Order: sequence, then structure tokens, then C-alpha cells
Amino acid sequence: MSVTDELLANNAAYAAQFSGPLPLPPAKHVAVVACMDARIDVYRVLGLQEGEAHVIRNAGGVVTDDEIRSLAISQRLLGTREIILIHHTDCGMLTFTDDEFKRSIQDETGVKPSWSAEAFGDLEEDVRQSIGRITGNPFVPVKDSVRGFVFDVATGVLTEVRP
Amino acid sequence: MSVTDELLANNAAYAAQFSGPLPLPPAKHVAVVACMDARIDVYRVLGLQEGEAHVIRNAGGVVTDDEIRSLAISQRLLGTREIILIHHTDCGMLTFTDDEFKRSIQDETGVKPSWSAEAFGDLEEDVRQSIGRITGNPFVPVKDSVRGFVFDVATGVLTEVRP
Repeated sequence: MSVTDELLANNAAYAAQFSGPLPLPPAKHVAVVACMDARIDVYRVLGLQEGEAHVIRNAGGVVTDDEIRSLAISQRLLGTREIILIHHTDCGMLTFTDDEFKRSIQDETGVKPSWSAEAFGDLEEDVRQSIGRITGNPFVPVKDSVRGFVFDVATGVLTEVRP
Repeated sequence: MSVTDELLANNAAYAAQFSGPLPLPPAKHVAVVACMDARIDVYRVLGLQEGEAHVIRNAGGVVTDDEIRSLAISQRLLGTREIILIHHTDCGMLTFTDDEFKRSIQDETGVKPSWSAEAFGDLEEDVRQSIGRITGNPFVPVKDSVRGFVFDVATGVLTEVRP
């Protein structure tokens, strides 16, 4: 039995006690951009209920064109007004460099990715970088509350990164 | 009090009963790519525990270069082997077109985004499109289990999209 099949069986149990549907726009008007790290259950970490916030996640919790796309849709079409960025301690993105990663892919496949791997050496600096990519972008209209945090995987605590 | 501050207060309660840290690599060796929709609590929908799966999310649950980047890192550096894609009913991406959305941004800001908005008109077709973007990409090495689903926001049920 694959893990996918096992998780589908879990879904049957979830659906059996499901009470929906909820409205499409996020009730708390907030969008979260977080790392894909398996240890960050964003809803639990922030005490969110279903229907309350958009949750955008990727390797590192970084901001690339795809996060700008998602945030533009979130704010312009679905009315979110605050943005919360979450990086975390013990992040895999701290363990390699773009050059190394892309070289290893090129050596194996013969092709070098045209994208940046977005590895980083300093957590707080990268949170500030992610904030800057949002505040400096013309397509995300609401920038009054764009705040960045580091989640400590040992304690569960979010600590704000000051500009 | 902002919503961000309210969620930070929730985090203090979460951290007070936190038991960590868990290992960095996902215990179930699976990566999920899902829509950012507020109603999809991926951990609950799939019965996932913290530490078990990478969770990648964006507007639509589509696959662009940034999801390929995240999946390449997930598989190559952190050992995931299965991919689960989740789109859903009542998705905002079904309600507009790329041309309309980018025109509205251009009219307001004077600048047209260079990226695609990735709107789509047919849910199942877009799940297949997302699967195809992964299976056709050289940078994601493990493609034995790339399966796509539609989450029904009225019932909580995941239904597989057949190729």
C-alpha cells in the first residue's frame, strides 16, 4: 500500500465528520507564506480554523514570481489585507548553495535549471529579503502589514524578524 | 489589534504544549502540492501529523517553475518519493481569465505582469496539466507516484483524477 493510498484512507475518515461548505474568501483576510517543511502545520502553529487564511508554501518560504502571483490573486480577487511570512530554524535551505544544487542536477540530467534554487545562508536576512520582494513589487497592492517570523522547530515559538 | 497579532497570541498557546523537535526529512516521504484555498487544511484532509510530508501551496495548486524547484529540493535533498496534487471545487481560479486579470493590473498600475496568472476553466483538465508538468520535467527525478485529486469543499472528499 502506497503512502498516497494510506492518506486517502485518512481522508475518508475526515470526510465522514466534515461540516461544510464555507465561503471562498478567507474570513480573517490574511495570507500566510511559509516554508514547505513538514514540521510546520501552519493551521496549528497560528491557531487557524478552516476558511480563515490563504496558505502559500514552498521550499524556504521564499518569495518568487509564483508567490507574487498567489498574493496578487489573494488580495485583488479575494480581499486579504495582511501577510505573514514564516521561515524556520533547521531549514534545509541553509545546507546547500544554489551553485552546488544546480551543478548536481546538471551533472545528473545534462541540463541546468534556469531558475534559482533560492538557498540562503542567514535566516533573518532571508526573511527581510522576502519582505522586501513583496514591499517592492507593484502587483501586491496592500502592504500595510507584511510581517516576517522565524518558527523554532524545537520550541514551536514564532519570533518576529525586525526590519 | 491586527489579525497577525491575534494569530501570534494563538502561537503562544501552541508553543506552550509543543513537543519537538522532529527530524528534518519528511517521515512519510511524500510531497503535497495543493491550492492555497483557506478551506483546505492539508494536514487534517490527509490525516497528516507534523513531520510527515512537505506541503507546497499556491493559487490553484498549479505547477510552475517554483513548484518544480520545491519538488526538486524535496526529492533530491530530503528523500520524498510520492507526489499528491490537490485542486478543489469552487476554486477562485475558475472565476477569471489570465487576460482579464492581467489587464486589470495593467490598468491600475501601468505595468503588466510577465508571469501567467494560471487561471483555468476545467478542474480535472488542470489537474492533468499539473501532473503533466511534473512528469515531463527533467529536474524532478522520482515520478512513479504522481497522483492528482479534486477536494470537494462541500463534503471534504478527495476524488482522484484519472489520466
